[in-house]
Amino acid sequence: MWGRTDLLDESDEMVKHRTDEEKNTLKNSEGIFFKESREGAVLITSIEVNEEGEKKLGKKKGKYITLTDLTVSPDNEESFHPLEKIFIKKLREMHNDYNLSKDSKILIIGLGNATITPDAIGPKAIEYLQGSSLTEKAERVKVVMYAPGVTGQTGFETSDFVQAISNAYKPDLIIVLDALAARNSERLCKTIQLTNTGIHPGSGVGNQRKEISEEVYGVPVTAIGIPMVVDGPVLYADAMEQVIHYIASKIEEKGSPSSALAVTPMVSNKEPTIDKTVLQPIFGEWVTWHKDEKRKLFEEVFVGKNPSLFVTPKETDAWVEHYAYLLSSGLESWITTR
Amino acid sequence: MWGRTDLLDESDEMVKHRTDEEKNTLKNSEGIFFKESREGAVLITSIEVNEEGEKKLGKKKGKYITLTDLTVSPDNEESFHPLEKIFIKKLREMHNDYNLSKDSKILIIGLGNATITPDAIGPKAIEYLQGSSLTEKAERVKVVMYAPGVTGQTGFETSDFVQAISNAYKPDLIIVLDALAARNSERLCKTIQLTNTGIHPGSGVGNQRKEISEEVYGVPVTAIGIPMVVDGPVLYADAMEQVIHYIASKIEEKGSPSSALAVTPMVSNKEPTIDKTVLQPIFGEWVTWHKDEKRKLFEEVFVGKNPSLFVTPKETDAWVEHYAYLLSSGLESWITTR
Amino acid sequence: MWGRTDLLDESDEMVKHRTDEEKNTLKNSEGIFFKESREGAVLITSIEVNEEGEKKLGKKKGKYITLTDLTVSPDNEESFHPLEKIFIKKLREMHNDYNLSKDSKILIIGLGNATITPDAIGPKAIEYLQGSSLTEKAERVKVVMYAPGVTGQTGFETSDFVQAISNAYKPDLIIVLDALAARNSERLCKTIQLTNTGIHPGSGVGNQRKEISEEVYGVPVTAIGIPMVVDGPVLYADAMEQVIHYIASKIEEKGSPSSALAVTPMVSNKEPTIDKTVLQPIFGEWVTWHKDEKRKLFEEVFVGKNPSLFVTPKETDAWVEHYAYLLSSGLESWITTR
Amino acid sequence: MWGRTDLLDESDEMVKHRTDEEKNTLKNSEGIFFKESREGAVLITSIEVNEEGEKKLGKKKGKYITLTDLTVSPDNEESFHPLEKIFIKKLREMHNDYNLSKDSKILIIGLGNATITPDAIGPKAIEYLQGSSLTEKAERVKVVMYAPGVTGQTGFETSDFVQAISNAYKPDLIIVLDALAARNSERLCKTIQLTNTGIHPGSGVGNQRKEISEEVYGVPVTAIGIPMVVDGPVLYADAMEQVIHYIASKIEEKGSPSSALAVTPMVSNKEPTIDKTVLQPIFGEWVTWHKDEKRKLFEEVFVGKNPSLFVTPKETDAWVEHYAYLLSSGLESWITTR
Repeated sequence: MWGRTDLLDESDEMVKHRTDEEKNTLKNSEGIFFKESREGAVLITSIEVNEEGEKKLGKKKGKYITLTDLTVSPDNEESFHPLEKIFIKKLREMHNDYNLSKDSKILIIGLGNATITPDAIGPKAIEYLQGSSLTEKAERVKVVMYAPGVTGQTGFETSDFVQAISNAYKPDLIIVLDALAARNSERLCKTIQLTNTGIHPGSGVGNQRKEISEEVYGVPVTAIGIPMVVDGPVLYADAMEQVIHYIASKIEEKGSPSSALAVTPMVSNKEPTIDKTVLQPIFGEWVTWHKDEKRKLFEEVFVGKNPSLFVTPKETDAWVEHYAYLLSSGLESWITTR
Repeated sequence: MWGRTDLLDESDEMVKHRTDEEKNTLKNSEGIFFKESREGAVLITSIEVNEEGEKKLGKKKGKYITLTDLTVSPDNEESFHPLEKIFIKKLREMHNDYNLSKDSKILIIGLGNATITPDAIGPKAIEYLQGSSLTEKAERVKVVMYAPGVTGQTGFETSDFVQAISNAYKPDLIIVLDALAARNSERLCKTIQLTNTGIHPGSGVGNQRKEISEEVYGVPVTAIGIPMVVDGPVLYADAMEQVIHYIASKIEEKGSPSSALAVTPMVSNKEPTIDKTVLQPIFGEWVTWHKDEKRKLFEEVFVGKNPSLFVTPKETDAWVEHYAYLLSSGLESWITTR
Repeated sequence: MWGRTDLLDESDEMVKHRTDEEKNTLKNSEGIFFKESREGAVLITSIEVNEEGEKKLGKKKGKYITLTDLTVSPDNEESFHPLEKIFIKKLREMHNDYNLSKDSKILIIGLGNATITPDAIGPKAIEYLQGSSLTEKAERVKVVMYAPGVTGQTGFETSDFVQAISNAYKPDLIIVLDALAARNSERLCKTIQLTNTGIHPGSGVGNQRKEISEEVYGVPVTAIGIPMVVDGPVLYADAMEQVIHYIASKIEEKGSPSSALAVTPMVSNKEPTIDKTVLQPIFGEWVTWHKDEKRKLFEEVFVGKNPSLFVTPKETDAWVEHYAYLLSSGLESWITTR
Repeated sequence: MWGRTDLLDESDEMVKHRTDEEKNTLKNSEGIFFKESREGAVLITSIEVNEEGEKKLGKKKGKYITLTDLTVSPDNEESFHPLEKIFIKKLREMHNDYNLSKDSKILIIGLGNATITPDAIGPKAIEYLQGSSLTEKAERVKVVMYAPGVTGQTGFETSDFVQAISNAYKPDLIIVLDALAARNSERLCKTIQLTNTGIHPGSGVGNQRKEISEEVYGVPVTAIGIPMVVDGPVLYADAMEQVIHYIASKIEEKGSPSSALAVTPMVSNKEPTIDKTVLQPIFGEWVTWHKDEKRKLFEEVFVGKNPSLFVTPKETDAWVEHYAYLLSSGLESWITTR
């Protein structure tokens, strides 16, 4: 559980915390194709890495799509509709090249532990799918669906489970749904991630599980994940960054009255340039550290101290319901109309 | 779902409604070994059919064990303890010849639909097992456990699922847990059935599912079932029999005052000899029919009329909890101490 | 739990198993107003008893409405839509005389034990209502909702609970939702019953609970119930009646070839006239007994034998979901548009 | 929901972050009686405020007991046994003066929203209690139990609910169970708090709910709470303190090699004296701020930014199960043997 797709690493390391100029450079670099767009409140980040990019960056070749909507709310089902609409669109785009026909067979696997609320998105989505029109039409649309549980429950490696069913069913496509550990607390419960590079179940929390990917099975694998938990050090480092930026903007404001009109961007991927000299008296040398260095300090302080550093919003039950429904409804819609 | 083990047919056709003399004949017949004993309130029926018996009776060769305790109550957890104790004992006896070592691998499958209460015994038992000491010791005791759901939910034949996992895990023994459709309303929720002849998931309600058995997988299969539902015609025919016997015993009583002392046997497998001439004025020719003929009349009357003829006691939630716990606890105990 | 509204007794004793001529007599009798109509597949029976009728019949004065739709199916949510539409209409009609304004306060109580599936309709409906638009508008529409559980769980008499909340909240109307024990197995899970004469929680199964009614609280009480369980003797007697009518119609058919065209009525409230002389050889004197006498014989046979004689269809989970949703959705619709 | 007992304020403001000398002063001050002891891994803090103390400190007169065990683990049920043992002991001590006889009536209320996992401790504990021996003996031990849900669900003020039932049942003691918002992230899920000063349901998150206390009802009220969530700013400020202390101890270590033997206290209520001059280059002026000032800065930064700042450990399901069971089991034990 708490798998991390490579996507997360990619997007974090490659895209986040870069200035617009850096992003332009990224766009022009060879081997990697980066695109960012917005539809309504939904920010869409698409990254494609080819073999050249894989060699240069050491990152797995493939497509990475991140959909972020900071306006979704656990109290309002309708707030998820724009995100679902674009999710379906991206599912379609992502599988355009696969030449899936009406007779193509799809295996959908919901990863995660149904008894741990924030990890239950995969199993819950399968539950919804098993009550959807896909089962009535099961014969026709050729879909097989399982929520195998986690290795600690079943005694069987999850990757081997998928392999076993794949060998028996011989699908043309495997879709894997999972809850993720967020690398960025701002995106917690606000993001859907899709990739065709596979997933490492449970790799996020130290236990090395076998990969679920096309390389392993010989069948295309689409991984779809929702960041549902964040570990303490990531959360604290994010909070510290926010404090530093807040103070910095306060100081800036004083000098430039027009800045009072500044609108906070919906997704803060453009970091303001901070005059660190001004902040140093308050926060000391620390202010000059990169966020990741701050996170590493927090990790060093908390290591071994609290085995349950991972936290989740208190409304996690509602978030899980909404995303499990969104995933099942989006998949149903794409599969029946593809 | 609502699988019926061959055991049910066997025990019903071979054992029930036979007089003591007939049972003695059965015991002495070649090819079939019949034994009945009692420990406390638990009635134990063991039948073994060999190849000769299989040819003669057309019944599958193998062992059939039925444990019945009419004193268990959904309101009293402790009332299940004697049944559990004997269940563990019989598990041990049944697998004596298998030469299972500490290194033997066991695959446990909980059949059934978790969203239909009386069909949820298999999935619930797996849930309990996944929270038991077996998972802590999973590496050591070598147990793999799944509740795959039913074909209508997953889109995949349950028998093929077991085959796929069996091919990948290569177990030395497969144990299958399932809710059953009772052929006898008196035993509803009062009986555990074990057999090494396999199970036909869903065969009880018309849809022909593939068998789960040693013949299919090349691995020994132990099927364990609890009768949780009964179909209308069986229930009505049983009720009619009870009425007829009740009236008959009332009439008899008048003639023989000593019979007032007669104690109803705990399991009514000894049918009183009824003087049908006496009952005919009240119930007509009908009274002379065999119970199965009465059932067939009910079936003819109700066929197609009510798709949900299957009924279950209203306390089905409590029954399911108790038996799921009993099965998981018994299996845990046997597996860790074998 | 398993309350029985007076409605059930009324409709069973007063209306069922009467010939059309008898019904006409009923319609013309003084003190009781009987009306039967049909909208689509929904049969609507309305009975109104006035003071004169109460004296004559010994039945409580008030309105009794029964909605029956034999075409609803647990597998098909849409099959419940016509029933819901008429339920809302009848809610409106029933409360026309109450002069409820926008400021009127309504107390909704869901009776029953949430841990026993067929008894969970009341608590489940409250759960749905608590997630409905009524809570958003709670201030405006003035609705208070509770599922108190049963006396055996809480240690407090349910009627006293309602009284306590009623005293504190001072509602203008109390609505009570409950699962019922059916007197007629054909209507099991196919009927909604409404009455303004109150309800006796748990009165159905022997334990005398205090009444929930306008007489007790001084506030109008509308009881809404769904028959979810049936006790064995009722079920067996119904089955025997069906067998007898089946045989009778078979015998009749032989004499009149045209009857092969006969269509079984959707709700079999018109009993065919049976020539009992013809059936007596088969079923004996028994065939001449009234259904209630047969039921009493079954009750005598089974009394004390099986404490859980109450049965429910195996798909009870799905029935409960559908009716809990129908009740909450219907009430929400009526309350917000009244 | 997320109520905060006065206990939390008391213990935080009065006891935490004080040196041993300050604690001694506290012990000797008039109007407040402070005691700290340890049994095994359980730290017991008892505070009693009398009228004089109430005037001086502005804190409510009454008893405050905090039990903290940092060794409890969500994966190990047995780890909760010592805490439960002392919980029962403290229940007994706390009610010694109440002269409760066998005939005394107790009303137990489980506060909170059952559909939000970390808020479900109260409702879950009631569920366990309703399945415990208390219901069998309900008549004898005179206990009434309810989980009313939250005002947003029911439409009725929770305090008025308790009042209504209290008026009807006339208990000799009211016990209120609730999940709390922690003021200290270290104690999250590690602490049980008892007080006789009452509780303010939902007061923790801004919405002013009516108090549940002896003053309101005229009946003694014992509030029992478990801190299950923590809000972001508290968590971040705690994390920053830990970082600062970690760096400080690293710097200290260099100067005094013997300090390498220093053992971190199990409950860090003794703050090391930090030489702030040494830390200022790294963390700036900030290091000199009090923890509460840091928290206020975090609050200022995050205010209005994220409506769901409250976080909970990802294993919240397991924590809730364990504490709901501990509370029900402890109460059952105390009530039946008092």
